[in-house]
Formats: sequence, structure tokens, C-alpha cells
Amino acid sequence: EITEQVIAFFQKKVLSGKRVLITAGPTFEAIDPVRGITNHSSGKMGFAIARAAIEAGAQVHLIAGPCDLNTPLQATGRITRTNVISAKEMHAATMASTDCDIFFAVAAVADWGIAKPSKEKMKRQGTKAPAIELIANPDILLDVAKAVKKKAGKPYPYCVGFAAESTTLAEHAKAKRIRKGIPMIVGNIGPDTFGSNLNQLLVIDDRGSKKLAQAEKLVLARQLIQLVAKKL
Amino acid sequence: EITEQVIAFFQKKVLSGKRVLITAGPTFEAIDPVRGITNHSSGKMGFAIARAAIEAGAQVHLIAGPCDLNTPLQATGRITRTNVISAKEMHAATMASTDCDIFFAVAAVADWGIAKPSKEKMKRQGTKAPAIELIANPDILLDVAKAVKKKAGKPYPYCVGFAAESTTLAEHAKAKRIRKGIPMIVGNIGPDTFGSNLNQLLVIDDRGSKKLAQAEKLVLARQLIQLVAKKL
Repeated sequence: EITEQVIAFFQKKVLSGKRVLITAGPTFEAIDPVRGITNHSSGKMGFAIARAAIEAGAQVHLIAGPCDLNTPLQATGRITRTNVISAKEMHAATMASTDCDIFFAVAAVADWGIAKPSKEKMKRQGTKAPAIELIANPDILLDVAKAVKKKAGKPYPYCVGFAAESTTLAEHAKAKRIRKGIPMIVGNIGPDTFGSNLNQLLVIDDRGSKKLAQAEKLVLARQLIQLVAKKL
Repeated sequence: EITEQVIAFFQKKVLSGKRVLITAGPTFEAIDPVRGITNHSSGKMGFAIARAAIEAGAQVHLIAGPCDLNTPLQATGRITRTNVISAKEMHAATMASTDCDIFFAVAAVADWGIAKPSKEKMKRQGTKAPAIELIANPDILLDVAKAVKKKAGKPYPYCVGFAAESTTLAEHAKAKRIRKGIPMIVGNIGPDTFGSNLNQLLVIDDRGSKKLAQAEKLVLARQLIQLVAKKL
């Protein structure tokens, strides 16, 4: 931990004075008071980026879905955390905070919510299964990208999306970058990385792609922060 | 922790030589490689019962759904843990282990699984939402109750069910005890207790019900073990 703090101290302060907004973790879409749809995201990558951004001198707002992780570097006073449960809540919290320099959309947000969540716990009825109607959730990254403003000719926030795909990562990630209208997307093979401390990233922007070799998520987060800082 | 060990040491050895099977935690029903249906169960109550049973002298087999809890009293060598993900896996692991004296069905098992899980991550398609077809999962508690055998005229395992209800707990729990054909059921108000270290129990058998006042889950687990031991 002391070594960690020394390493943190010597990170280049490339985001000094910048405000960084980060979503992290899964969301949980309630079916009834006890059940819901969620995903395997642990929140570790988003929390690592939050830590790396603070190390680089930024002020961070971390919007976290349900995950059991401690707020990084809380003692610095340079991080604010908002806890949310559902994609709708994460969307509202994020849209209220887009006045910043960089937005990292790291959370694995549920694409679909439950149309009519049950107020009471649904009962098992023999071998019959209930129908659960899904509805599309708001698209947080798309909506932030649409809300991008300009200051002295420069658009802000600089939006970095994440893509967790189970197959053909590069193609899916490139298509997603274009579809969302964002300058940068970071691909990682979801099922291999969820919950792990290790990850492997493919950083894609309008000039091409760069692979960040397998390493601890915090190490990758620091590399990513250096790459993004050059774009501001 | 030392105080805890002293308390543990002085628990009455009411389950000496007994074998106890316990399911704990939630299950996770995969929709695709990253998404799934789960519930708010933390596993804490089932793990507390496992610990209390070991303290009381039992040999424990703990079958745990996905939860981030350490195996209790592992150093004693009197606990075996099997990790499972889905209700089907939990059913298979449990049915293979019914040769025991007591079965505590504490896990919050998904009543329904996904009929056709997708092998690849499902993609967002604008505002359209996919249909997810559910199918009834096997009923673990019912199947264990049906598999009860007799030894010297006494049925085994003695089955203890759990009921997590959002409303009218007592009626739901009593009806569930009869429906499952088990001698004892333990009710707790799910949404209030999930994730908490505190709980409040209503123990129901064929002679009536007994309330165990709000306390730490481990304290309640010890009281429950004493109650169940009298039934053997």
C-alpha cells in the first residue's frame, strides 16, 4: 500500500485541474422486490480509472452501480461518489453531471429494463413461468455524446466509451464508436475480464487502434489516462 | 475474532456427529455471456447457519451460489464447500448430497431460468427489446423433501425451508411449509434482511410458530440450530 502510494505520487499530473466523470459497475433492473437482471461487471476497471485520474491530478465524479468496492483515494477529497441501482438512475445522475472535461462510460449498463416491475415478490406457480416484458433503457453514452458542448472551439466532455464483447471485439467496438458518435472507444473481452484484476485493452480512435497488453487494471487505467490526456 | 472463537468453543455440541447440508446465496441464470437474472440474497444467513452448525459439532456441506463470502471455520476441516452458479447446478449438487441428517434450504434459488440463453452477447437494437422466455427451474426443496428416507423409523434429512416474502410473511410461510411437505420453515422479510448482518426470524413447524427477535444473523443461526437439534 505504501509502494502503491509512492507510485501514485509519481504519476504525471497530466489531468491537473480537469474534471472527470466516470460510470462504473453493473446496473440492476428490478423484476420484483428481490429479483432482477444484472451482469458480471465487478466495477474494478471503472474504479481503477477513477484512481488513475485522481493520481493524474483530476477531480473525479464516480457514478457507481451496485458493487462492493471502496471509493478510491477518498482521503484526497478529490472524488465524489454517487451510488445508483438501475440504468435509469445512472442515466439521470450522469446527465446531471456532464459539465466536465472527460467522460468515461465504463459501467456495464443494462440495455433493457423491466416494463412493469412487480411491487410484490412474484410467486412460483408450478411449472408455469411468468412473462417478463423488457423495454429499452436510455442510452447514457449516446445521450452524453449528443450533449457535448464547445469551449474555445474544443468539444467537451471528451467521451470515452467501453465495449465488452464476447466475439469479434475490434469490429464491434469500431462500429460502436461510430454509432455513438464518440472520439474514443476501449474494447475488452467481457467474459474474460469481469471480476478479474487483469485486463487487456484495445483503444480505438479516429486514427486507428492501439493494443494495451495484459496487465493489472490499475496499470492499464494509468496508460489509458496518459492516452486520453493527449487528446484534450 | 478471539472473543468470537471463545463463544464458538462454548456452543453446546448439540449436533455432534451429525451431517448438515446447507444451500446459501443467490443463483444466477445466464441470459447471455454477460447478463443474467439474480436476486439480492447475500448468502450471509446460510453462511451463518453453516458456522453455527460446525460450532455445534456437525460436519457441514455448504452449497453456495455466487457470493463473495469466505467459507466459515474452514480450518476445522469440518466444512466442504461446493460453488454453483445456476439453480439447475444447485439442484444437481444438492440432490447428490441428500444422505445427511439435516437440510437447510437457505439459498434464494431462482424459480425460473432462461429457456434459451444466448451464446453471444445480445446487442442493443435501438428502442426494440428482445423477448426473454423463462422456464420453471427444478424445485430443490420439494425434491429433497420427496427424497426423504427413514432410518430406525425416523425420517432423514430433517428439512428446514426458508421463506423470503415481501408481504404477509406468516401466511405465505405456513402455506409454503405445507406445499413443500417439510417439518419446519423459517420466515424472514427478504428485502429488509438481504445484505444486512441483522435479521429477524419466524420459525414455523407443525406445532405452531416462534419468533426469534432481531439480532445478528450468527446469533439467530445459533438459536435456530438449538431448535432444530431438538427435533432429531
